[in-house]
Amino acid sequence: MLPSGVTYADRFEGISGSAIRAIFKVLTKPDMISFAGGNPSNEALPHEVCAELAREALLTDGKRILQYGATEGYPPFLESLLGYLKANYRFPVEKEHLLPLSGSTQGIDVLCKAFTNPGDTVLVESPTFLGNMQTLRIYQQRLVPVQSDEQGVIPERLEEVVRRERPKMLYIIPTFQNPTGRTLAAERREPIARLAEKYGFLVVEDDPYRDLRYAGTPLPPIKEYDRSEHVIYMGSFSKIISPGMRVGYMVGNADIVAKCAIGKQGGDLHTANLTQAIVDLYLRRNLLAPHITDILPSYRDKLNAMLDELSAFPAGTTYTRPEGGLFIFVTMPEGFHAGEVFKEAVERGVAYVPGTSFYPEGGHDNTLRLNFSNSTLDQIHRGMAILRDLFAARLG
Amino acid sequence: MLPSGVTYADRFEGISGSAIRAIFKVLTKPDMISFAGGNPSNEALPHEVCAELAREALLTDGKRILQYGATEGYPPFLESLLGYLKANYRFPVEKEHLLPLSGSTQGIDVLCKAFTNPGDTVLVESPTFLGNMQTLRIYQQRLVPVQSDEQGVIPERLEEVVRRERPKMLYIIPTFQNPTGRTLAAERREPIARLAEKYGFLVVEDDPYRDLRYAGTPLPPIKEYDRSEHVIYMGSFSKIISPGMRVGYMVGNADIVAKCAIGKQGGDLHTANLTQAIVDLYLRRNLLAPHITDILPSYRDKLNAMLDELSAFPAGTTYTRPEGGLFIFVTMPEGFHAGEVFKEAVERGVAYVPGTSFYPEGGHDNTLRLNFSNSTLDQIHRGMAILRDLFAARLG
Repeated sequence: MLPSGVTYADRFEGISGSAIRAIFKVLTKPDMISFAGGNPSNEALPHEVCAELAREALLTDGKRILQYGATEGYPPFLESLLGYLKANYRFPVEKEHLLPLSGSTQGIDVLCKAFTNPGDTVLVESPTFLGNMQTLRIYQQRLVPVQSDEQGVIPERLEEVVRRERPKMLYIIPTFQNPTGRTLAAERREPIARLAEKYGFLVVEDDPYRDLRYAGTPLPPIKEYDRSEHVIYMGSFSKIISPGMRVGYMVGNADIVAKCAIGKQGGDLHTANLTQAIVDLYLRRNLLAPHITDILPSYRDKLNAMLDELSAFPAGTTYTRPEGGLFIFVTMPEGFHAGEVFKEAVERGVAYVPGTSFYPEGGHDNTLRLNFSNSTLDQIHRGMAILRDLFAARLG
Repeated sequence: MLPSGVTYADRFEGISGSAIRAIFKVLTKPDMISFAGGNPSNEALPHEVCAELAREALLTDGKRILQYGATEGYPPFLESLLGYLKANYRFPVEKEHLLPLSGSTQGIDVLCKAFTNPGDTVLVESPTFLGNMQTLRIYQQRLVPVQSDEQGVIPERLEEVVRRERPKMLYIIPTFQNPTGRTLAAERREPIARLAEKYGFLVVEDDPYRDLRYAGTPLPPIKEYDRSEHVIYMGSFSKIISPGMRVGYMVGNADIVAKCAIGKQGGDLHTANLTQAIVDLYLRRNLLAPHITDILPSYRDKLNAMLDELSAFPAGTTYTRPEGGLFIFVTMPEGFHAGEVFKEAVERGVAYVPGTSFYPEGGHDNTLRLNFSNSTLDQIHRGMAILRDLFAARLG
């Protein structure tokens, strides 16, 4: 109960924490097989290397690391991040275009804070990442879905909705999208940058899964087609080094980044210097590329194992076949209700996320999101067999 | 320049980054003596101990530390924080009352997000901490000063302004306040808790300096008089272990804390597990109390050296005589303009913060804030002599 006289902010109307949080609370059961999270594989987390890097960073630059830092970032990290971006991306970037973030999700918060008013319109994929959807809702944005197909957002449909809705922003995860695993087709990327330029809206390109590619060829980010600075690129080390360190970054127009820094200053002031220093050494020692090469085969095997299991699911089941990332999105035949079946699945020891939570407009009760990265191959085989039998029984 | 069609949010009207940030940018000059910051002493930052604790934490619990954590905190840290609070405070506290924060300043952000609407009124001391004043302004709060004297906020004046303004919140730094160093008198603490209960507003008690006491007797926080859960207590390890790690916490009503956790979830998701783990081990190994005992004498010497120097300042100079904290607040004779003199001071190699930035209503151009903790004794003597001569010359 709240103390007398205290009331919630209007912006929290209908905000009750994400569905995933509630789901995580049922996962304490021992031996639960969870396809619900979005966690990278525990095996892929380089804790021994990070232990030595943390110690070394603190012994060699400890006073600066433990002291207050700049909102704009720990200087050695800024330097190595810049080098990393120049080596791996073809968009122009200098320090003034960079803002380290405490996870790329903080980017949505500061962009909304600095560039949107309540009632503004933000276009989103449907389905899309529910965590950021919640952040957009807290900032009282009108979420309008853009029609997509298996190749992602359809530029022609995007232009129609832009002309009708005059959005402030398009929020898009172009590569191995959460929750679908889908990738925006190469030929649709430049048109999106051009529409942003033509109509004057921001494209927030959230790209944390990009380096977890198990097949196919990398595609240029939308940001590489951005000649008018309407695209804000958000990257993250969460999926390729560690999510618990909370180190991501934003690349964008210098004035946008400067205003976001003021927003961040009033939030956490700066990202912890120590975690920036660890990622700095990781980049500076060229540990990242070999680490990614190391971890990809196991992720690939898990994805393939889960796809294999899905091929034996009841007739009428369809699902995405991602080339990377952490998720497969499943559509069961009409009439199936993933939310209702969820409780029974958990009782049998397997969890997933009902797909409805990812749709700004709700519905789609016959869909679900599966994560394959945070389970062993054995758990994937056992867990998927349990779901297959349960779903088959439910479908009668 | 912003990209075409992109505009700032209304809430950023008049927000241009804090005055202190601008000042920090002039401090790159080598050999600058800076009394401008709010940094703890570099010598007091335990970087070698933290290096070993970081390594140990990652080697023993590295998978959990590098994986996604809970917004509600890294479980071992929650446990040791709870033990620390029970041992050092007399207010009742359980885990449901706790939220780890990425610095206590994040507490203001999430409280505003979850509990205030634009146009709400927040009462503040005058002068007060300008960083949090900026956060309150971004949330479009009306800042109304409460009359204070050398003993801090005057309860009778507080009641008058509460009856007139019907505030949502009182933001107060009761101990070794920033920027004045003043401490709220013992007998004024309970009345503030009672007024919050009577009129139904939140008291945000920001208490990061409490343990940096060089003289006198510790006073109970306002929270210890709180029987109606109107007081949110915000503590921090920034001033006693490390600000660069960004680890603070909030203690409050369970429903308030739960809603703030949802706000934090949409910000940085959670505070970095590694920095929580380092503070956890620091507390668990009972390193904090001896560390504080170790660092106090040097802080005390610096405070006394600066007070000594101030006694030789021109006639008509008045200043606070804090028993702890990091700051002394100086009032020069009428007609002196600390902002105008600032440029010349910097040219002579000494920086401070003009006091006007700390006043919600502006003015008070004859005041300035001095930080003594981040300079050596020699720098304090040299820097204060420079200021004394400069100020005397200006006063003619």
